[in-house]
Amino acid sequence: MKAEIIAVGTELLLGDILNTNAQYLSRKLADLGFTVHFQSVVGDNPQRLQQLAQQAKHRSDIVIYSGGLGPTADDLTKETVAAAYGDPMQFDAAQFEKIEQYFKACNKPMSENNRKQAMVPANGKTLENRNGTAPGALFEQDGKIAILLPGPPKELVPMFEQEVQPILQQMQNSVLVSRVLRVYGIGESVLEGMVSHLLERENPTAALYAKTSEVVIRITAKAENKQRADQMCDETAQEFYQILGSSVYAEGEQPMEQTVVNLLAEQGKTVATAESCTGGLLSQRITSVAGSSKVFECGVCSYANRIKQSILGVPEDVLNLYGAVSSETAYYMAKGCQAISQADFAVGITGIAGPDGGSEEKPVGLVYVSVTDGTTVWIHRMVVAHRSREIVRFSATQKVLDMVRRLLLHLPLADCECRPIADE
Amino acid sequence: MKAEIIAVGTELLLGDILNTNAQYLSRKLADLGFTVHFQSVVGDNPQRLQQLAQQAKHRSDIVIYSGGLGPTADDLTKETVAAAYGDPMQFDAAQFEKIEQYFKACNKPMSENNRKQAMVPANGKTLENRNGTAPGALFEQDGKIAILLPGPPKELVPMFEQEVQPILQQMQNSVLVSRVLRVYGIGESVLEGMVSHLLERENPTAALYAKTSEVVIRITAKAENKQRADQMCDETAQEFYQILGSSVYAEGEQPMEQTVVNLLAEQGKTVATAESCTGGLLSQRITSVAGSSKVFECGVCSYANRIKQSILGVPEDVLNLYGAVSSETAYYMAKGCQAISQADFAVGITGIAGPDGGSEEKPVGLVYVSVTDGTTVWIHRMVVAHRSREIVRFSATQKVLDMVRRLLLHLPLADCECRPIADE
Repeated sequence: MKAEIIAVGTELLLGDILNTNAQYLSRKLADLGFTVHFQSVVGDNPQRLQQLAQQAKHRSDIVIYSGGLGPTADDLTKETVAAAYGDPMQFDAAQFEKIEQYFKACNKPMSENNRKQAMVPANGKTLENRNGTAPGALFEQDGKIAILLPGPPKELVPMFEQEVQPILQQMQNSVLVSRVLRVYGIGESVLEGMVSHLLERENPTAALYAKTSEVVIRITAKAENKQRADQMCDETAQEFYQILGSSVYAEGEQPMEQTVVNLLAEQGKTVATAESCTGGLLSQRITSVAGSSKVFECGVCSYANRIKQSILGVPEDVLNLYGAVSSETAYYMAKGCQAISQADFAVGITGIAGPDGGSEEKPVGLVYVSVTDGTTVWIHRMVVAHRSREIVRFSATQKVLDMVRRLLLHLPLADCECRPIADE
Repeated sequence: MKAEIIAVGTELLLGDILNTNAQYLSRKLADLGFTVHFQSVVGDNPQRLQQLAQQAKHRSDIVIYSGGLGPTADDLTKETVAAAYGDPMQFDAAQFEKIEQYFKACNKPMSENNRKQAMVPANGKTLENRNGTAPGALFEQDGKIAILLPGPPKELVPMFEQEVQPILQQMQNSVLVSRVLRVYGIGESVLEGMVSHLLERENPTAALYAKTSEVVIRITAKAENKQRADQMCDETAQEFYQILGSSVYAEGEQPMEQTVVNLLAEQGKTVATAESCTGGLLSQRITSVAGSSKVFECGVCSYANRIKQSILGVPEDVLNLYGAVSSETAYYMAKGCQAISQADFAVGITGIAGPDGGSEEKPVGLVYVSVTDGTTVWIHRMVVAHRSREIVRFSATQKVLDMVRRLLLHLPLADCECRPIADE
């Protein structure tokens, strides 16, 4: 079945925002077995939108729209596409009440414009929006389907997954199943060399995607039913596991922080963090996981040396002798953090995120990360070559999360200095 | 002049890569005064590309293509677009030699396919590629222009800036200037009501874009020269300032954390943070700003009540009597954080980010944020209705950053409880 994606919004044509919805929807449609043959962006212009809607309806079985469902006068997608599919719109009192309640809950005044958002398809379907005021819509005519989603990804993604995906799966007779393996610690080109024979197959297919501080392997199998497709994915996944072992840290949409929080929760263990150059990014990543309050004790973000001393107990002479960015300071940060938090694992990060502050001896991108279980401190020295502040910070948190994961799984910690905690 | 952008590549339709070129080219074309009215993505399919090329030539004065200039059999953009603009291609011995030399310099073997890349327009122009083997091309027929650029951004961006921009500037007689105002504290639809008369003008135009916890206003003026366009933007910006006052917190690509770090640095002041439900997101946002180490003292992420007591000094009976999510706890978090850090401003955040942990009395989305200058504590109670963990957390940090901004600028803090710090 042929599909196409149309994003509506002058802000896309001005280059104000990046069209990430097109990528998300394309991947989802590919997984579901639809062939996306066009993506388009058109402005908040009724004539051009109308023309494109007619053309798309003619050449594609299914057209997914994003954007232009808001309350303002230039949000025209719903009226325009409704007309193309011959669906009169009608006012929905229940939707209107939802919108009213939404504004009440936010304690914000509702504007008269928001009334427009309660107009829904008379013949088609209304798609619930649990994360905003604009409901989505589905129109159908002559076996051709249009699906309208709100523009903000935070509203579009859950609406697609909860409301649209079940409809699309029903439309397909063959089932596509995907499985994602997440790999940490092996770069993309080395990984490609290790698994090249698995990347050449036709069904299941497997492909690598390089992300910041990890590589994602996507396996996709096509079969007559889900059971068979699942089995095919399993078999291929097993081949990857045999080659990559514990470098595969998780499957699916489960990032490293979720993996570590899950392991801690399963084992009834807790963690605490002491951060310098990452400035709270690590605690933020851990606590972004729902339910992390059971495993996270506390985080100390000790930017000033004075705080490293007063809260974490890093000795003044260590800071003077070795500097704040040193293996010794990382040791004391983990140790001190464990002492104040009494957590099962405590982490320390100190480094130079840049863009300034680097020297020949201690360049931008140099980070010491440390983990302790209360008895031993493991310290890793890393130099992150992509010298953007953001990448240095993310890479350091990713590495130290992987170290906690390895301790929890009793896996070896490579490239680490290992120091028993001395009673001082 | 009307422009459109066409990206060619099946990998875009599969969602394997994000179309960042479209955003880059759109912004550049807008700056140069072209009206981009379409963006499209089409696969490596000669029929569909041919149809789209004809349609685009018909409706647009200038069409910019990206991708499909490589050496492989499915790289068809050059042949297909050349045919649409009636330009026969010819073999260029000098280009071929350049390609040969490129491979020699990389120490890579050259394939016979690369010969294809030395085919250049007979009537149009060849655009030099200093960062790869595929030259770009320009075709012209009946006053309509097509420009073909390579797909990889590392090749496309320098080719655009060095080869294409001078051509486009010559084509334009007028200059376009844009200015962005960032607004916090007023929702999109209320804002639209307040400034609707300014949104209806033709030159300068002004448009609103809703982002998470803020709204962006983009003013764009068209004039015969930059000076005049700048002046027109200034005048319109002043009209917005007169209506919105201090709700405009910054201009351009400067988020709230950058605004606050800049103000602190200008005034030689420092800040410290005590976070519960935001888990370090606030300290992470502040320290994501390069140079923030001069203004940021420390952050304490006190997830466990025990840590709220031991590090921040929140009294046990306050936690027992009012709970961790309360105005009283927020008061003691800011007060305690100021005491340990000795920062000029200290912030406290405590709330329920969800998805679990809510009750009727204290629902998910309830957050108390507080700020102190060491003498007084201002506390704001908010209920964030978008009940995703991420949005609750971001909104709380945005609010409290705005409170710090207002204190730094001696602006009133609306909707805040105000308590002098008592010596206890």
